[in-house]
Amino acid sequence: MTDMALPDEPATPALVVDLDVLDRNLEAMSDLARRAGVKLRPHVKTHKCLEIAERQVRAGADGLTVATVAEAEVFASAGFDDLFIAYPLWVDRDKGARIRRLLGSVRLTVGVDSGEGGRAMAAQLGADRGRTAVLIEVDSGHHRTGVPPDMAGALADQLRHEGLVVGGVFTFPGHSYEPGMPQTAAQDESTALRDAADALRSVGIEPEVVSGGSTPSVRFAEPGTVTEIRPGVYPFGDAQQLELGTCKPRDIALTALATVVSRSNGDVVLDSGSKVIGADRPAWTTGHGRLLDHLDARITAISEHHATVRWDDSPVPSPGDRLRVVPNHVCNAVNLVDELAIVQDGRFVDRWAVAARGANT
Amino acid sequence: MTDMALPDEPATPALVVDLDVLDRNLEAMSDLARRAGVKLRPHVKTHKCLEIAERQVRAGADGLTVATVAEAEVFASAGFDDLFIAYPLWVDRDKGARIRRLLGSVRLTVGVDSGEGGRAMAAQLGADRGRTAVLIEVDSGHHRTGVPPDMAGALADQLRHEGLVVGGVFTFPGHSYEPGMPQTAAQDESTALRDAADALRSVGIEPEVVSGGSTPSVRFAEPGTVTEIRPGVYPFGDAQQLELGTCKPRDIALTALATVVSRSNGDVVLDSGSKVIGADRPAWTTGHGRLLDHLDARITAISEHHATVRWDDSPVPSPGDRLRVVPNHVCNAVNLVDELAIVQDGRFVDRWAVAARGANT
Repeated sequence: MTDMALPDEPATPALVVDLDVLDRNLEAMSDLARRAGVKLRPHVKTHKCLEIAERQVRAGADGLTVATVAEAEVFASAGFDDLFIAYPLWVDRDKGARIRRLLGSVRLTVGVDSGEGGRAMAAQLGADRGRTAVLIEVDSGHHRTGVPPDMAGALADQLRHEGLVVGGVFTFPGHSYEPGMPQTAAQDESTALRDAADALRSVGIEPEVVSGGSTPSVRFAEPGTVTEIRPGVYPFGDAQQLELGTCKPRDIALTALATVVSRSNGDVVLDSGSKVIGADRPAWTTGHGRLLDHLDARITAISEHHATVRWDDSPVPSPGDRLRVVPNHVCNAVNLVDELAIVQDGRFVDRWAVAARGANT
Repeated sequence: MTDMALPDEPATPALVVDLDVLDRNLEAMSDLARRAGVKLRPHVKTHKCLEIAERQVRAGADGLTVATVAEAEVFASAGFDDLFIAYPLWVDRDKGARIRRLLGSVRLTVGVDSGEGGRAMAAQLGADRGRTAVLIEVDSGHHRTGVPPDMAGALADQLRHEGLVVGGVFTFPGHSYEPGMPQTAAQDESTALRDAADALRSVGIEPEVVSGGSTPSVRFAEPGTVTEIRPGVYPFGDAQQLELGTCKPRDIALTALATVVSRSNGDVVLDSGSKVIGADRPAWTTGHGRLLDHLDARITAISEHHATVRWDDSPVPSPGDRLRVVPNHVCNAVNLVDELAIVQDGRFVDRWAVAARGANT
């Protein structure tokens, strides 16, 4: 899309991606995977963007991870042919028909974490149920979905009797998202995946895939446990990653370009509200995002079209000034916009569609 | 769009609107405005939907409120010709050109809360600067944007000297969004607007418009203070309104239809994550939303595609069961989807586009 007419700068609020920082982040994660001798299957729910997925594959990714059938459909239509839906899908008639269509062009893997889920999937896929591998989701401490590791064998056995092909196990160590926890979560993940893999072997299934890895925990992973990692946020970074120490300000590739619209006392109000940076605000974060060029400022309140910034520094920005806001949770921010403005060397060079925006079903 | 083929039920997660509840809510607010003798100018940022705006006008609304120039453009193209942008816009070249285009078909009013903002607007609108009325935003206790009421006169005088037409004052008593606060916020609003109106009169400007009203505070408004109210959330209601006591479960018109995908101990995991119900979670809420048909259940955690529900009742729902989730903040939920599924008497009868989804600039 480089031939379209681009304005000097986009209207605010807008999400802007620094291309050089993005490429550096992609290269760094590919290096980490290469050095660890594991496959990199990035989670594209973070960016939902074909151009970034292409760059991830060019940098060495082996296949992609998605969260929904609808995301799989978007990336499959663009020619990506090795997709893992890392989610314990409930496959009803609609999702069954759509998965069967995907099998025409994609090597598809799907998550399962219950006998009921596996049975429903097998019933809907019918004669095609052997054409998609299933990975058993294991709870490694995040306590969201997934079975306890020692129950993976019994579930695998049950799924096999439903005619499903059990390809291995996966987990999401989401409890890495808290200060001081990335390393602990990585250890929990290794233990859980090793136990789950052993549980599969105990029923005679050699796991081909042992899949883990969140962006905060991935660099602490124990060597030799996993065959692939599925980090999502690393292309962009965000304020959560900054505050967890997973990335540095120079690694932040995506910001919301915002305009100061109001000012009173030490508070500055920006037009980057929750409808462009999202409303995520974990209790341990310092606020509703960060200002990339003013790390001492704190975003103390947010509403749909306002971000209130407490500004103790001087000079305080004036109405009309433009600032760069780092969202707390970049995956939810990207899902709010139709396109990302791409900047390189301070110039806007392209726009990339958020092709899978809203692809929830 | 009633002639399109509709499936028995939409794929989940999906946002579903009960048409009869919606219409009842619209009628109730129109009644309230009629009885109070004030104009109703509903804020359409909540639904961003042409069909609902049409129903609001049919039920007696006088014009619409929007939050952005982009929202104004969407509703103007559909023929709505009386719009108030209730936001202290920073009018740069781009927004100035777009406002001038809007003036061709719309009676447009725009918010201002600073001399700089007014000067920028006047400069960009040039010869057209007298064709849009401006309302001065007043801070009535929410402490976000707006000038103190007693400064409204000086600002009005300044704006008038820039060639702008000052039509009156407005406020958003957003501090009504806390338990026990709706009545207090309504009182603060009345005081602030009365003081601001007097301040305008002190510089010789008789305010034509005195505009207030959030959904929680509007029924407590002091008679005779405002000329119009701008509630937004009332067509749908949401979990915040439920927990504030502003509406009852039977008034909830919009829910996220969700499927149980996983279950362990007393926890049930639904597919209605923050990418469909939003991540808003004020500290005073009981969780990340409510279950309309199970008001004792608590949504204890949310991630992009998971809502974890603590379930103390029995029986606990099974994988595959469908439940109705009430988002905490319906405005952010609606902005996440391309269309709303419309249900009447338990049957899906239509789909309405979220026409102004993502219209942030």
